[in-house]
This record gives sequence, C-alpha cells and structure tokens, in this order.
Amino acid sequence: MTYVEKLQALRQLMTNQGVDAYVITAADPHISEYLPAHYKAIPFACGFTGSAGTLVITQTFAGLWTDSRYFSQAETQLQGTGYELVKLKVPHTPEYMAWLLEVLPGGAKVAFNHQLITVALAIEMKQHLLARSIETIDFDFVSAIWTDRVGLPQEKAYLIGEEAAGLSISDKIAETRAILKTNATAYHFISSLDDIAWLFNLRGKDVDYNPVALSFAIITPDETKLFIDQEKLSETDIDILNKQGVRVYPYQNISKALQALPPDASIFIDPKRTCFGLYQCLPKTAQVIFGINPTTHLKSLKNDTEVKHIRKAMLQDGVALSRFFKWMEDRLGKEKITEWSAAEQLAKFRAEQQSFVDLSFNTIAGYNANGALPHYSVTAESDQEIKGDGLFLVDSGGQYLYGTTDITRVMPIGKASAGQADDYTLVLKGLIEGAKLIFPEGTKGYQIDAICRKPLWDYTINFGHGTGHGIGFFLNVHEGPQNISPANVDIAFKPGMVTSIEPGIYRPGRHGVRIENLVLCSAHSNSEFGNFLAFETLTLCFIDTTIVNKTLLESHQLVWLNQYNQMVFDRLQPLLSVEEAEWLKVKCQPI
Amino acid sequence: MTYVEKLQALRQLMTNQGVDAYVITAADPHISEYLPAHYKAIPFACGFTGSAGTLVITQTFAGLWTDSRYFSQAETQLQGTGYELVKLKVPHTPEYMAWLLEVLPGGAKVAFNHQLITVALAIEMKQHLLARSIETIDFDFVSAIWTDRVGLPQEKAYLIGEEAAGLSISDKIAETRAILKTNATAYHFISSLDDIAWLFNLRGKDVDYNPVALSFAIITPDETKLFIDQEKLSETDIDILNKQGVRVYPYQNISKALQALPPDASIFIDPKRTCFGLYQCLPKTAQVIFGINPTTHLKSLKNDTEVKHIRKAMLQDGVALSRFFKWMEDRLGKEKITEWSAAEQLAKFRAEQQSFVDLSFNTIAGYNANGALPHYSVTAESDQEIKGDGLFLVDSGGQYLYGTTDITRVMPIGKASAGQADDYTLVLKGLIEGAKLIFPEGTKGYQIDAICRKPLWDYTINFGHGTGHGIGFFLNVHEGPQNISPANVDIAFKPGMVTSIEPGIYRPGRHGVRIENLVLCSAHSNSEFGNFLAFETLTLCFIDTTIVNKTLLESHQLVWLNQYNQMVFDRLQPLLSVEEAEWLKVKCQPI
Repeated sequence: MTYVEKLQALRQLMTNQGVDAYVITAADPHISEYLPAHYKAIPFACGFTGSAGTLVITQTFAGLWTDSRYFSQAETQLQGTGYELVKLKVPHTPEYMAWLLEVLPGGAKVAFNHQLITVALAIEMKQHLLARSIETIDFDFVSAIWTDRVGLPQEKAYLIGEEAAGLSISDKIAETRAILKTNATAYHFISSLDDIAWLFNLRGKDVDYNPVALSFAIITPDETKLFIDQEKLSETDIDILNKQGVRVYPYQNISKALQALPPDASIFIDPKRTCFGLYQCLPKTAQVIFGINPTTHLKSLKNDTEVKHIRKAMLQDGVALSRFFKWMEDRLGKEKITEWSAAEQLAKFRAEQQSFVDLSFNTIAGYNANGALPHYSVTAESDQEIKGDGLFLVDSGGQYLYGTTDITRVMPIGKASAGQADDYTLVLKGLIEGAKLIFPEGTKGYQIDAICRKPLWDYTINFGHGTGHGIGFFLNVHEGPQNISPANVDIAFKPGMVTSIEPGIYRPGRHGVRIENLVLCSAHSNSEFGNFLAFETLTLCFIDTTIVNKTLLESHQLVWLNQYNQMVFDRLQPLLSVEEAEWLKVKCQPI
Repeated sequence: MTYVEKLQALRQLMTNQGVDAYVITAADPHISEYLPAHYKAIPFACGFTGSAGTLVITQTFAGLWTDSRYFSQAETQLQGTGYELVKLKVPHTPEYMAWLLEVLPGGAKVAFNHQLITVALAIEMKQHLLARSIETIDFDFVSAIWTDRVGLPQEKAYLIGEEAAGLSISDKIAETRAILKTNATAYHFISSLDDIAWLFNLRGKDVDYNPVALSFAIITPDETKLFIDQEKLSETDIDILNKQGVRVYPYQNISKALQALPPDASIFIDPKRTCFGLYQCLPKTAQVIFGINPTTHLKSLKNDTEVKHIRKAMLQDGVALSRFFKWMEDRLGKEKITEWSAAEQLAKFRAEQQSFVDLSFNTIAGYNANGALPHYSVTAESDQEIKGDGLFLVDSGGQYLYGTTDITRVMPIGKASAGQADDYTLVLKGLIEGAKLIFPEGTKGYQIDAICRKPLWDYTINFGHGTGHGIGFFLNVHEGPQNISPANVDIAFKPGMVTSIEPGIYRPGRHGVRIENLVLCSAHSNSEFGNFLAFETLTLCFIDTTIVNKTLLESHQLVWLNQYNQMVFDRLQPLLSVEEAEWLKVKCQPI
C-alpha cells in the first residue's frame, strides 16, 4: 500500500465507526523514548522517520505535528503522502488539541489508541474535548491495516547481579515500598522500562540504545510481580528473582492482573509514564495516587558500586574517544572523512573496548552548518565531507558493562574563525561555571541552568535546549527526575545524581558548538549556612584548547581547564600506547 | 479580660457550638499583608504582635504557629497567656493542618472564620480534613468576645488622576477585560486592595504603609462596580468614576452583589487573594475560573508616566538618605544615637521631602546582632545604641506622590572587621551580578535568583529570604506577580517591572549585611538569539566603599560600583546644599 492508500483505508475505517478525527501518537505502552519497530506507526503511516510527531487525520485533512528540528525533513518525507506538515510552536506539546477544538463540531468523535498515550495527556485531552461535547474513544485503526507489521522484540534479557548494581533486588523493592508507604499506599504499577530494569537489576535488548526489556511490574503489600515474556529469561535468573521475592508472569497478563487488584486498593502510578489503556484496567473503585515513580527517584541516586563501575566505563570511553580524535587528526587532509564515516569509526573504537555493549544513542556528528542542528542525525543525503575550515561537533555515547556515557566535543578543522573561537570559548565558560558550581542543598536544576547560561547571556547569546539531563547506570541516556533546564522542574539535586552539562551555541547555516561532560553530584561541605553540594566531572576526554580565546576566560576558568586536561591525561595514559599517550599529552598541555 | 480569660471564653463558645478546634488566622477579607486594627485578632487574643502567625485552639491545647523570625518575641509575649509557641519549619505554611489531623478524631469539627482565609487555603484545608471525616465550619468566636473592638478604618480616599497614573480608569478596565476574554470569561471579582487601587487610580489610608482603601470590585460584561464606603470619596471623584464607566456601591453590599451574579456566569477570581467567605457567595452554578488577577499582571508593568514619577521619588528618597547618613556621621561618637532614634531621624528627613506621604513599611534599623535578624523591628526593649565597631543595617522606604521606595544600606561603624568587610563585599557582588545581568526574554525570577547568590555560594554562604520582590507604583512595597526567589514561580520578567535586588548575609548574634536597590526591567537588545532584557537601577543612594574588599571584586564589578556612585552623585548633587554635596562627593569617590 502507498501512503495515500493507507490514508484512504484509515479514513474508511473512521467512517465505518463514525469517527471524525483519529490521532496517531509516537509511543508504545511503556511510554518509551525509543520505540521498538513494532510500534513505529508514524513511519508506517506516512514515511516520516523523525523521533517526535503526532498524526491527526480527519476526512478533509491529514497532518503531522512536529517541532522545528524536523521541519525540513518532514517537508521532504511527507511529499505525495496526503499528509501536511503542521509546525509546532512549542516542542513536545499537544498543540493539535486546539486545532481539533477549532475544526470539530460539538458531538464529534475523536479516536486514539489508549495504549499509546499517557494517562496525563489522555486526561487533559478528554477534559478539553469534553468541555466542547466532543467524545474521545479508543480505536486502533493502524493495526487493522498494518498487515506486514513486525512482532514484539524477542531479545534475551538478563540480571546484572548485586556486584554490578550495588543493591539486591529485594533491597530495592524494600526501598520502593518505603516510599509507597510515605504516600499512604502499598500498591504500585510500573510500566516504564528503565524503572523496571533498575528495580529488578534486569537488562535487555528490546529497544535501540536502551538496555531494557519489555515488561511491567506490580507491587502489592505481599507480592512483587514481574510481567515479561518468560522465554527471555534464563532459568537461573528466574530462580534468582524468585529467591528475591519476585514472581514472574507472562507479559500479556498485565491487563488481567491490574483488573484483579482489590477494588478498595489505593494504587500509585506515574501519570506521565503509564499508558491510559492500562490505567483504565485498574478497578474503578480504586484510589489512584499520581506521582513520579519511586524507582525514578531511587535510581537517580547512584550508589558507590554503581559510581565505581561508571568510572570504569568513563576510562574505556575516554580511550575510545582519544583514539578517535587521533585517528581524525592523522587522516584529515590525507583521506576523505565524512560525518558518517567519522561516526562509524568512533563506534568502532568504542566497540573495541572490553565492556562495550552498544551505543547509548544515535551519534550526532555534524560539520559546520550540520553542527548547528542540535539533534542532527546524519543521512546519506545530508552527509558532509569534513574538510576546509570549521568546526566538527560530535555528540555520542556508549553502553558498557557497567555504565552509560554521553559526551560532546567540538574539533576545530583547518583554521577556525575568530567568531568560532569565541563561541567555543563562551560555551566552555558555561560548562566550567556548571562544573565548578558550589550550591546549597535543595538547589533545583533551574537554578544551575542560569549559572551555565550567564557567560552566553553576557553576549546576548542563548540556546534552545536544556543545559543537562539525568543519565542512567547502564540504562537510558536520558532519565529523570532531575535535569538542568529553565523549566520549573521542582527536583532538588542530591548526592549520587549523574547529570550532563552541555551548553551550546548554534548559528544556523554556519556552525554549532556544544561541549558536554557528565558530572556526579556530591557533598561539598557543611558551613554555618547549611550543607553544600558540588559536582565532580566524570567524563574523561580532553577539551581542545587550540581555539580557546584566553582573553574571554577568567583565571579560575583557565585553571579548571588545565587541571581537567591534566586529569584526563593522568587517568587515560596507563591505558594508551606510547604513541597515543604522547599525542594525548600534547592535547592536554596547559595553556 | 486577660488573655487567659479570653481563651476560656473562646473555649466556652466552642463547647456551646460543639466545635473541637478553632483556627484564628492573621488576615482581613482582602487578604492584605498589613491589617487594619479592626482585624488584628491575634494581638487581641494572645498579645502576640508579630506580622505572621496562626492560633489553633482545642479544649486541651492552645498554640501559636509562627516562623523563626518571631520565636523569641513569641516566647516572651505568650508567657502566662495559656498559648504555647509552635515553631513553623517552613514559614507561611499551614503546618497546623498536619497537627489537627494528628490530634482530632474522625467526625470532629474545626471552625474558622471564612472571611479571613483564602479560597486556596480553605479548599486545601477542607480536602485534607474531609479525607479524615473532619468537618470544617464557619464561626467567628473572636468577634463575639471582642467588645472594645475598633471599627473599620474611615480614612478618606482619592483618585490620583491620569497625569499621575499614565492611563485612564476606562483604559485600565478595557485592558483587564481583554485578559478576561483570553480566559474565556467576562465576569471578575477583585478583593485585593492594591489591585483595586491600580484599576481605579484610587488611593487611600486605611492600612498602614499601603496607600489603599477598603473596597471590592466586580467587572461584568456591561458594568464595573466599585464597592467602597461612599463617605470616603469626594463628589468630584465619584463623578470622575461615573464618567469612566464605574458605578460606586456601598462596601457592605458586596455579598449580595456576588449572590446576584448570573447563575450561569463564568467568574474569574484569584484564589490566593480572595477570601473563602465571599467566594461562597458566588452562585453555586457559576463556573469559577482561578488565576492570578489580570490587574496584578497589568500593574506590574509600569508605564512611562509611572516610571517618570518613580524617578522623581527616587531623587527625593536619595536626598533624604544622603542627609540621614551625613547626620549619622556628623553625630556618631558625639551624641547618643540608637537604632530607634536613627530610624526616627530618617523618617524625619523623608517627611521633609515635598512629595512625601508615608513610610512604605516599618523601618528595619539593626546594629550588629540585631542586623542579623532579616525582619528585625526595633522595640523599646531591643533598642541598641550605635557605638563601638560594627555594621548598622537600615532597610527603609517611603511613599511619595508618586512612587514607592525600598532600599537597604549598611553603614560601617568604627572599625569593621575583615570578616564583616568580606561579607559586605560578597553581598555587593551579588547585587551587582543581578543589576548587570543581561537575560533573554522569558527568563523567570528563579533563574535570576541563582545569579545573585552565586558569589555567596562560592564561599558556602547563603541567605534564607528571596533575592527580590516586585514593588508597586505609589502602592504596596510588596507586589506580584514576579519575584526573584528560588521558588518556582512561573512568571517571566517583562519590561516595565520594578523589582528589588537584595541579597544578604546574616551571622546570628554577630552582624547582618543586606544591600538593596530597586531595578527597572527594560529592553536591552535584539540578537539572532532573540530579544534580551536588562535592569536599570532606579535607587539613588551611594553604596559605602570604605569597607569593600577590592580583592574580592572582579574588575567589571568595580567599574559598576564606581559608575553607580558617580551617577548617584551627579543626580543628587543639584538637590543638595553645597556642604551636603561636598560630603556626598567624598562618599561617591571611585575606588
């Protein structure tokens, strides 16, 4: 079927069911950031392959709502499909809701698949639409026409053991139960895959880049139930789970298990990480308590064992990155290197590391104008040769046993301009201000965000993404609850949190700069004004100093830069060949 | 009656009505910060005179919940009253609610006066208590025993004219209606006195320090109604109001007017600035829309005329402050000056200014240990002589025709210690970082707050109050919606907002430092990254440089300090005597 034929078929199904508008979201029942192929309904329906978007179909209009990252890609991919691009003003917002309210008459019916929308969004949508007497109903028209759909992923899953995770499964369940208790509840339904992975020391390969396994979990006062395709687990692992007090049930049984919860139970769920369809399976008389999953809080606080493993992963990542930048330098001007081939080579160096498992996300490798696209993903068409003068931005990361990395560096190519050097230096200042910050207990990410932006604001420069995100322990490269962003996320930084600091400057059509390190929040001191926290930089990769404009750096920032590069050299040198170490020594020389 | 007898009488009334707990709040039906004497129920009941507190009475316990500012004052004042001090962990929070939940059995009855509690708090309280089957009811036992109570204030009120306000009343009503329209409503009830004062260009003297008049307002699609004791207004002013489309009704008619609103109206109210009792007068079938009063947003954006007047007020305030600090310097060591007499003298200098109306709040004048109490209010008992060595902190302000000021300066007395000089310099750095900040449109107060604190955080120092608050145009010294604080108040700074910047360092028992200026938010520039805003400092009073530790100042901060003092001298000099100008010139000399 062509996309036009698929659209016709969907509209026919809508007519048959008396549906006026059909909404197709980019989601799975676990509200994952990366979707298994089975759930990639938007590429199936219209060919658009961007990571964020929503399709809305009526009999007279079909549109893709997506954000500015994807405007040009969507315009190309949607040609001749019957879908039009609708530009989102604010990314990740359901702006199509206002459109539906505008075009639909009272009494109209809007359909969406309740398995593929969060509880929070479904409730918001129902409220808005119901206020205008528009009904919302559950239909999955896509599945009806998706004949060659791949099945759910069947990858093996495995337990990582207490020596890796630092805590036993039963201890983690006890900690989770303690938080449930402070919320006056003892029942909990979890559907977010990284929360489940953390709780059961479970890892898998069902989703690109995220080492998770399709699963659900229910905690009750007496039981802990893991819902997973049992074929995925070894008998040994099932034994271990059982001994830790976990009973394993078939993945498909989740709806029935939710329906069978006591009618008077009070049940804790995370409305932003639970799908509406499964929420509706809870007993109608149950009291549902909304909040951030307890496991999200708990897993953000990395324990000493986890930190020890992360440090090892950083060493391996640093070796791979050193080799990559040396490889680039040795070959540039001699052989053709493109964004694509560079990214491939970097992946190769990472894969050579002993504990490597996978990349932690799709590498962003952008030269000059492509580097100005913060979420650039190189394609055969966009691929640029890295030659001449400019800046090459590489944002990449790996999954290791055990640890997840995420790092951005900018490599000057040929002769960078003075403006490029200044942008580079200002971004570096922003990174250093964050990395060096001492802050009182209770400080939120939105306070730290401004500190990192100030060196840019001083020159009327800003950037459109957050300054940093939480990162998992051999888990998702993006995890909550904390972040460093202007948004008023009311989460205080705590010792043990690992977060990225990644300010940037993007000059569309010209170049982009972003420098990113991962930092560990730790106790700093106790003064008469209370407890203070600080960051320790975990990432181990030299920061290029050749284009730093020293006149823009304050002396304490220069000290930090030289000390950081010295530390990188000291830690990586034992793991490098003599030739590599000599090369890195030059890169890490103080300026 | 003694306090003990009053408590017995209240308990008898509670018994008669079957009430288990009685809550007495510090409030009036307008949810004002400063209360008319008529509403000072807490001093009447227990003798406690602090500005914040709540009494909770049961048959076996009577307590005053207040915050750390008032712990020692409350301990003294409550002696022998039958009330015990209960220390609030978080200021301005209803922590007594958890206590009520703990001590009361299911089925108990809690009484409070619905006229003296916000809609937001009443709804929260009812929810919490009802969840445990505890009933809340409306009783005013205090009034029943308060035989010598003063009446409502009867001060004259007046209109300030368009040449003062910059906008006509009808224009302001039109702007308010436009915001109501974007909220899909046309009915609006206002009870906050400063909102009403702004909307009707109305000023009065019913409340200490705040030039407002007791009043209510209702906007409907066709009418604008002002509820005020008509004796307060001149016939001319009533004529002007009528011509601007405003009908004046008796103050006491507000309940009936609310009850008479159309049963199907959708009515906008501010749940934090409306009392629960009047909210309950709205038709039960009406749709009530909660939000910040439109007038709160509008009045925060000072127009050009208002700014022109504020600048004039700043000149007069600057002259008074210069004379005061010269007066202090001339007399110190020669005659006895105390915190109290200094504050009196400062008020006198302000009162000599042509446009002076009143102080804008009770002057905080604290020497050494008393300066370490951020909200110190000098009493006959606490009054200290200003002598020897140390720091004298003065936080004060005036109401002028037309403009409100608020300024804090620290005067070194004798020989300040190195530690005092360092604290002073760090606070000054925080002020300068805020004053010099360039920030993108959309920046919230919580982002600016961190910028001002960072110079303190660097030395593991912090302070427990917000960095700044909005301030009225010849209105309340504290006004919303913006502030500069760590709390996640989701309000972006906009050109025209006037806000204080007032970081501080408090060393209990030793000294306190706070330096405060008012700044005007204004457009800075437009770059390829969007619009940027900045602050212009409005306050005109030299900042003492004699104890600045220059080694702690960055060069750009030193430049700002010298330029600021030069500007203060240039602007004030024409208004000073030759002797005063010569004295100020020395104070403003660059360092």
